[in-house]
Amino acid sequence: MKIYDFKGFPNPTRVRIALAEKRLSHRVEFVSINLPEGEHKRPSFLAKNPFGLVPVLELEDGTTIAECTAITEYLDHIDGEPILTGKTVRDRALIHMMQRRVEASLFEAVVAYYHHATPGLGPEIELYQNREWGEKSLERAKHCMEYLDGVLATQPYLAGNQFSVADITAFVGITFAASLDTRVPSTCSSLRAWQDRIAGRPSINAVA
Amino acid sequence: MKIYDFKGFPNPTRVRIALAEKRLSHRVEFVSINLPEGEHKRPSFLAKNPFGLVPVLELEDGTTIAECTAITEYLDHIDGEPILTGKTVRDRALIHMMQRRVEASLFEAVVAYYHHATPGLGPEIELYQNREWGEKSLERAKHCMEYLDGVLATQPYLAGNQFSVADITAFVGITFAASLDTRVPSTCSSLRAWQDRIAGRPSINAVA
Repeated sequence: MKIYDFKGFPNPTRVRIALAEKRLSHRVEFVSINLPEGEHKRPSFLAKNPFGLVPVLELEDGTTIAECTAITEYLDHIDGEPILTGKTVRDRALIHMMQRRVEASLFEAVVAYYHHATPGLGPEIELYQNREWGEKSLERAKHCMEYLDGVLATQPYLAGNQFSVADITAFVGITFAASLDTRVPSTCSSLRAWQDRIAGRPSINAVA
Repeated sequence: MKIYDFKGFPNPTRVRIALAEKRLSHRVEFVSINLPEGEHKRPSFLAKNPFGLVPVLELEDGTTIAECTAITEYLDHIDGEPILTGKTVRDRALIHMMQRRVEASLFEAVVAYYHHATPGLGPEIELYQNREWGEKSLERAKHCMEYLDGVLATQPYLAGNQFSVADITAFVGITFAASLDTRVPSTCSSLRAWQDRIAGRPSINAVA
């Protein structure tokens, strides 16, 4: 398998953590797509993903799979423990729900802040910016942190008792926010404790 | 099972079509949450879904599952044909990818247009509007329609040869856009033909 991505950026990190958790990283050849140079918007990459987003997983037969959650879903079913998307029907649904919540209200909100209210990837790539939308998105991300703090007051991981893809998405979103000078509020002690625990997982160090 | 929703609104329609496709509608008790009156923002509903969004699936044991795709995933694995989220690992990933694409770039874009650039649910509920963002989102939805037209030039359904949850999400998004006076461009003949075919499915008439 090949993965087209750019090391250190948020979406690539989500999939790299999933690979490291499942000890599948050695089965993947990584191909670097230079985002700051806009390589993801050029025809050769758009042929892999017309939406111009990394990462993209390419299978041996040439099939390309984009979208982090689709890639994680695929990886989760070819091999390896732990299972990141749930084993029972009920667990799968609850993990899916929480993954979607943190993706929409935290991860994508921080990404919107980055692209709209900071220089982002620079003026040649950020062709449309809406600063007010970016600022509002950051507010939404902060509200989501407070919600997650409440969730983690009663359970060790975001979707229950097991580490899951929801924890990966939220951790990468929170790390990205911190790199943009927005940290988890000090009042969110459960979320901060979770953040420290996740940061200590071998998968996180493996992708650093 | 109970589903808390509001008939006729886009997200509720997505799950109702999935239920009708799988002939599971009779196993669900629907509880109406009056969106135009803001019932989804009141404490009794926020206890079911702190994000204040319908639909919510409530299981017999009281577990609540929000987010359309999580609910559809759950329904898809308890019973009934057709399978809407794929049977093989590869099909599941490709359907997941296309579902996510149409959700992010079409469905949610039309919803953003509705909430930001039209009166939406009215001034008491739409407490923050960003018209420019709404207009830009509608542009994004139109671009997505053109992309989907290209996809459908070579295959009958959005994720391949089988009807899937991606078709449901896109169809509801396109129907919602039409209700806001934005129709599929006449140049998109493959997408229009697909739209007519989907509109003829018994599940669509069942939820009308």
